[in-house]
Amino acid sequence: MTGRRHRLIIVSNRGPVTYDRDANGARVERRGAGGLVTALRGLREHHDVTWIASATTDEDRVVAGEGRHDVVMVAHDPQAYDLYYNVVANPMLWFIQHSLWGPATTPVVGRELHEAWHQGYETVNRRFAEAVVAELDNDPDATVFFHDYHLYLAPRMVRELRPDARLAHFVHIPWPVDWTVLPVAMRRAVHEGLLANDVVGFHTARWARNFERSCDDVCGSCGRTEVTNHPISIDVDEFERLRDSERVLAAEDALQRPEKLVVRVDRTDPSKNIVRGLRAFGILLDEHPEWRGRVKLLARLDPSREKIAEYLTYREAIDAEARAVGERHPGAVELQVADAFPQSVAAYKQYDVLFVNPVYDGMNLVAKEGPLVNERDGVLVLSENAGAHDELGEWAVTVNPFDVWEQAEALHAALSMDAGERRRRAGAIRSQVRENDVAKWVRGLLSDLDRVSA
Amino acid sequence: MTGRRHRLIIVSNRGPVTYDRDANGARVERRGAGGLVTALRGLREHHDVTWIASATTDEDRVVAGEGRHDVVMVAHDPQAYDLYYNVVANPMLWFIQHSLWGPATTPVVGRELHEAWHQGYETVNRRFAEAVVAELDNDPDATVFFHDYHLYLAPRMVRELRPDARLAHFVHIPWPVDWTVLPVAMRRAVHEGLLANDVVGFHTARWARNFERSCDDVCGSCGRTEVTNHPISIDVDEFERLRDSERVLAAEDALQRPEKLVVRVDRTDPSKNIVRGLRAFGILLDEHPEWRGRVKLLARLDPSREKIAEYLTYREAIDAEARAVGERHPGAVELQVADAFPQSVAAYKQYDVLFVNPVYDGMNLVAKEGPLVNERDGVLVLSENAGAHDELGEWAVTVNPFDVWEQAEALHAALSMDAGERRRRAGAIRSQVRENDVAKWVRGLLSDLDRVSA
Repeated sequence: MTGRRHRLIIVSNRGPVTYDRDANGARVERRGAGGLVTALRGLREHHDVTWIASATTDEDRVVAGEGRHDVVMVAHDPQAYDLYYNVVANPMLWFIQHSLWGPATTPVVGRELHEAWHQGYETVNRRFAEAVVAELDNDPDATVFFHDYHLYLAPRMVRELRPDARLAHFVHIPWPVDWTVLPVAMRRAVHEGLLANDVVGFHTARWARNFERSCDDVCGSCGRTEVTNHPISIDVDEFERLRDSERVLAAEDALQRPEKLVVRVDRTDPSKNIVRGLRAFGILLDEHPEWRGRVKLLARLDPSREKIAEYLTYREAIDAEARAVGERHPGAVELQVADAFPQSVAAYKQYDVLFVNPVYDGMNLVAKEGPLVNERDGVLVLSENAGAHDELGEWAVTVNPFDVWEQAEALHAALSMDAGERRRRAGAIRSQVRENDVAKWVRGLLSDLDRVSA
Repeated sequence: MTGRRHRLIIVSNRGPVTYDRDANGARVERRGAGGLVTALRGLREHHDVTWIASATTDEDRVVAGEGRHDVVMVAHDPQAYDLYYNVVANPMLWFIQHSLWGPATTPVVGRELHEAWHQGYETVNRRFAEAVVAELDNDPDATVFFHDYHLYLAPRMVRELRPDARLAHFVHIPWPVDWTVLPVAMRRAVHEGLLANDVVGFHTARWARNFERSCDDVCGSCGRTEVTNHPISIDVDEFERLRDSERVLAAEDALQRPEKLVVRVDRTDPSKNIVRGLRAFGILLDEHPEWRGRVKLLARLDPSREKIAEYLTYREAIDAEARAVGERHPGAVELQVADAFPQSVAAYKQYDVLFVNPVYDGMNLVAKEGPLVNERDGVLVLSENAGAHDELGEWAVTVNPFDVWEQAEALHAALSMDAGERRRRAGAIRSQVRENDVAKWVRGLLSDLDRVSA
């Protein structure tokens, strides 16, 4: 940690806690989910943190009215929040940034997006900006630290009201060069919003470079904004405790191991490339009959964004492809669609091959979590378009996410790799993850903030 | 024209002529089709040109064996040619460069692409390179001038055999920054192939800048290759003669004019964005009832690449959207799907609005041809992603190709524009096209070649 104690106003859509009431009507605090929240929680131990986030439950809304300053819950108009979250942020911005649209036919931008932008995304960002300004009035020297694609407009709104504020923003998903899918006024607002920050950070040099390029195209330059990159990671200690937890051990006992186990762990998100992955596994068994009956693919999938049409369609495509492979190779594929983290960690420990083939991914923490706890010197098959590839590609079997034939051959190579080579690679990845854990990411962010504060 | 007489070896997939036999068995020469061939034909009047192209007919193959040096016909293995043309060049490279793939689900790259690359694209490029080297042996000081996306590998093959050759390449279609859809070995080969040229040219600064960026990503830099841009255009004199030709006048007589005529002229290519255009026209009539019964959309469509599945699917989507609009607004849309250039020119002369909304387009000559001959001070509605927008956007109504609502509003604005404003804009576009016709493009290319030769 940098020695200086920071006064931080963290702003993210999801917060560190949410509140509910139990059967007796008593307030219950639950830890927020998601890698970002986990990663940032550590900051609160060493710094003075106010965390501003959306109220997501009825009890959150009650908390929102209580005037707390450690966690500020912003209660949004439910319809505005729905437009902000389910139309603009997901799928529109998420799909643009992961290059998931198919410009020949999708998206078809209509009046709905324009209305959702003004009545949803702008409205919610405005509410966040107001909450930030209120906190800055309590503590004018605090640094404001925005997170992710939900909040691209808020920094400029704050800057206009408080020109001397210190503002930083971290974008946790990929950044593409070409933003023309987004109507020009929105495209400009996204870039001008981010460029109102003193610092904008990304996980990798690749996404940072793309941001500089799109700023050149949309705004002429990045202006005075500093663009940095720091790879996010996992909390190694916490993960190693989890590895030996009762729930994980129980899940491990329940796991049926074939001779060779290929594992993937993903949300059911089109960016995760689950359909092509299943296709590739089918091709492996088609083309390399020696593996039939000996190798199984366990796909641990957390259901995701089930209110969004594109996600439902993708879920159907996953099921269809799994059936197609299963018809040719009965029992070779097991889909487990459920939120069940202990089962995922059990699978991490037991895999022979971890298959991580996202279309695009800001980082992909599966590629770090799995190798850290795996006990079989399993091989990582990793997409060149995962941010994690910058750190781990050297010891992974690299695949192009679009090329199912190459992916099948990569699985074959990984399954066939000799024990010494597997041990060498698995050990190198483990060391890399241990030495570059989430605390290092936090230090990188804080040193950015120090420069901003100076 | 630059004064110096150039000795040029032009290399393109399609040539300036093709040969057939008539009913009596006599050889018949036909002028090659396509804007590129028309544009380059002018070069032959002022320079010593050898033109190397693919033999596309049986009689071309006969000519290929005759050892001519003005037009060298390269006779390819038919299967290799099919893989080169119908698998690699179209749709794969065409779709990448026009950003038409939908990475969430397409393309699914399999063994077929790898085989088509090696047995088709490499093979045909090798044959072209051998033909170039044979011509260079006749005339070692000639400058070799490659064209377009069919021939990305040939320059490097020539460079390896003739290190001192002067090589230039012009790319007539857009250049995207992100090439990761293409497997890494192919991606490298495309870039290294182009960077074997002394000069690489594009139609606009935007495509040239994107090329420099993708070279940075794929190869580390552009090396010593000079990257230039020159906007292609039309032969104004030829077009003005055509305007008054009997066939065009006859087509004009046959044209049924409503009160207001919106015209689009395209190949049935997904890059042309015909489906979203129809959708937008339907929205115009839905949202602005004052136009119902008064305005018609005439879509003049040349059938394109009907051997390729993606094009057949797209053709069906065009028909379905036209039916959907026609059911709500009977008679408002007329699709004319046929190669019929005189009918297109007749429509150019008569439009009130010319609707050019490509997803991406290297240049788009419709946006120059139409305004040159239009007789009604018609308004150009133009996609920001057409290369022509760099030159003409100032006087067009600009649209985002993905935003059908904006396109509908743009059509409304164009139809509603007052006469003075229409005259001012139409006149400005006409002057711009006249003053920057294809001869200027040719002069730009030749000055590039002069620098290479120096």
